[in-house]
Amino acid sequence: MDSSLIKEIARETGTPVYIYREEGIVDNYRAFYSAFREGCAKSRVFYAYKANTNLALCRILAREGAGADVVSGGELETALKAGLSGRDIIFTSNSKTAAELSLAVDCGAVINVDSQSELSMLSDIAREKGKTARISFRINPGIDAKTHDKIATGLKGSKFGIHVEEGLALKAYKTAKEMPGLDIAGVHTHLGSQIRDTLPYASAAEKIFEFTGVLKKELGIELGFVDLGGGLAVPYEGEKTAPPGDLADAIVPVYDRWCKALGYEPELWLEPGRYLVAGAGMLLCRVQSVKETPYKRFVNLDAGFNTFLRPAMYDAYHKINVVGREDDKPSVKYDVAGNICESGDLFARDRMLPETREGDLMAILDAGAYGYSMASRYNSRPLPPEVLVRSDGSYEVIRERESMEDLYRNQRIPKDLL
Amino acid sequence: MDSSLIKEIARETGTPVYIYREEGIVDNYRAFYSAFREGCAKSRVFYAYKANTNLALCRILAREGAGADVVSGGELETALKAGLSGRDIIFTSNSKTAAELSLAVDCGAVINVDSQSELSMLSDIAREKGKTARISFRINPGIDAKTHDKIATGLKGSKFGIHVEEGLALKAYKTAKEMPGLDIAGVHTHLGSQIRDTLPYASAAEKIFEFTGVLKKELGIELGFVDLGGGLAVPYEGEKTAPPGDLADAIVPVYDRWCKALGYEPELWLEPGRYLVAGAGMLLCRVQSVKETPYKRFVNLDAGFNTFLRPAMYDAYHKINVVGREDDKPSVKYDVAGNICESGDLFARDRMLPETREGDLMAILDAGAYGYSMASRYNSRPLPPEVLVRSDGSYEVIRERESMEDLYRNQRIPKDLL
Repeated sequence: MDSSLIKEIARETGTPVYIYREEGIVDNYRAFYSAFREGCAKSRVFYAYKANTNLALCRILAREGAGADVVSGGELETALKAGLSGRDIIFTSNSKTAAELSLAVDCGAVINVDSQSELSMLSDIAREKGKTARISFRINPGIDAKTHDKIATGLKGSKFGIHVEEGLALKAYKTAKEMPGLDIAGVHTHLGSQIRDTLPYASAAEKIFEFTGVLKKELGIELGFVDLGGGLAVPYEGEKTAPPGDLADAIVPVYDRWCKALGYEPELWLEPGRYLVAGAGMLLCRVQSVKETPYKRFVNLDAGFNTFLRPAMYDAYHKINVVGREDDKPSVKYDVAGNICESGDLFARDRMLPETREGDLMAILDAGAYGYSMASRYNSRPLPPEVLVRSDGSYEVIRERESMEDLYRNQRIPKDLL
Repeated sequence: MDSSLIKEIARETGTPVYIYREEGIVDNYRAFYSAFREGCAKSRVFYAYKANTNLALCRILAREGAGADVVSGGELETALKAGLSGRDIIFTSNSKTAAELSLAVDCGAVINVDSQSELSMLSDIAREKGKTARISFRINPGIDAKTHDKIATGLKGSKFGIHVEEGLALKAYKTAKEMPGLDIAGVHTHLGSQIRDTLPYASAAEKIFEFTGVLKKELGIELGFVDLGGGLAVPYEGEKTAPPGDLADAIVPVYDRWCKALGYEPELWLEPGRYLVAGAGMLLCRVQSVKETPYKRFVNLDAGFNTFLRPAMYDAYHKINVVGREDDKPSVKYDVAGNICESGDLFARDRMLPETREGDLMAILDAGAYGYSMASRYNSRPLPPEVLVRSDGSYEVIRERESMEDLYRNQRIPKDLL
């Protein structure tokens, strides 16, 4: 992004501020969609809302044709508000409330069931409403996708999904087939986040299609879709990650082979989140002070892990630019510190950057995913604004900065304490 | 807390909900205050607001006589709103904005300066206002207090404070003495959080008083206070932690000895946060489903690391009760899972609990500190309510549950995307 535009935005909105490029989001979506659509006419892309639920971004992706992969009643409402209908929504969570299930049944979203006990609850809810719930089951593939422990969801011991082993997944479908109020629409799996290699996807596809074959053979079930989830890495560290074309090349041949074996063609669903929005966003901060100690040089920013949690929580690496000096030689080693009162609140350790001083702007890159969506008000700091740079080069504030009033809004002080 | 009262609160507010006991907070404060006041008439206690900034709790502690240790302009405003004046407030942060410094100068709070560059900015601000800023410096003690890396703030390489080594801290005071608009009020240090042993405190006290002696001898400075920070552990794991009496026994003799050597008696300031509120609070959740896999048994709650971050972020241990069955024998091993779409979202692994089922209430204990204050809306889940159980046994909602409207409140959708 042009550094004069970045400076202009900082002047208007103050810092910290999240900035997203519409063009980047659109390009990412089209690259992903085309990669699969070329090889498989029946593929569909569902944007994983948890990466970033700003309504403007959700509407851009809805306009492009993306469905929604949602994980809560709140995200489901947001998807409807973004203009989607239940047919475009799949709702996945290991722990859904009755109210969330009810909302999903009402709008006709696919409910991705995680356990037998949830299945019974759902059947009851649908029957009471006199409606039919469209369901799939989340299958635990038991695959180690070599990512960070906290985001590897496909491991055997993970809280997610139903295992194929011991016939558990088959039993779940059998039960669902016999229960009233349920319509079996598909099957789902998900390996985790930030997966760099396509091999685990090919393995997962093989496992899930094999199970799809068992469903046909044992129960005569033909599925409307097979959903392989999301989790494709973006190259935060400049390292090699697979582009969507490679992912399609790994998955589509498995799909084709199994379609022949199955004798029918389910839709192939994919759920990218990070891939679509991470690289299109940055967190823009201001340098408050530069401090030299006998051990380290610190740059203190006006944002902290409350604003952007990934470095503190997952030890995530993010490229950092000094705005306007992107091409200068990195000549000084800094720890880039946040403003939260904890030692772990560092955006980067021992990072080589151009020499910097108070008042400089710093951009933390690839912050469009799991940035604002994980932000908190910790240390009583109001949430930052969000800005969208449009494809024509203009920009708009798509979320205003919170005020202190927002922090007090829902508080009630007992009379005797006033 | 009585399980019938807990159930009544769950019925009224729904779950998840944070519940605090007024009596617990008051008892903790009085125990801490008395422990120091007995040995040192000049001791003062400042509540570390970052632990929990609910206004009702801040007002209870203000009523008891606690000052405020704040880390942002937002917390400073909250302290003023809780009825405190600048004389009762110390403002510490490694990265303060000009607006935050300005607010602190205006209300007369002590500003705990973290670097030379901040000092110059502060002097300019005070002079422009024609006011005097009351300051202390945060000294990095270079002490390893044996706690979690992310919360050990007193290490040599930490982002916090000015080092005594190489005469840096002395130089800072000398500069401050010569700068206009500044009034040197004291000195401050802080070791970190959740420190179980009193020995590091005694070492820190020794170091800081030794430096106070140097200030007197070299610059003729007599300080109004010496602030040893906070960080006393609470016994989350049932393990042994030092009570405030032990802490006072470790620090007061150092204080007494140094007062004689100094020839004057500065106030002794302490900044407990967690100790005052952690044990007086719980997070109450509902069991949504219980799932058996070939590898694990999961209890799925209706809260996640968005609601309570400590277990996922710091691997923190918290005791968990099945409400109404607190005395039953723990007979089943569970992973207690949150409802966030990440594998790392577990409140407990392999935890022995009484057998539990859908609809049970589970209380995550010792959640009064760094619970609500770190909560986010991740996965588009509105923030939970907070309830205060009064000393007379009644209860009041002190923060209402957020609605989805709160999540959309500050969003603006560009016209062409509507």
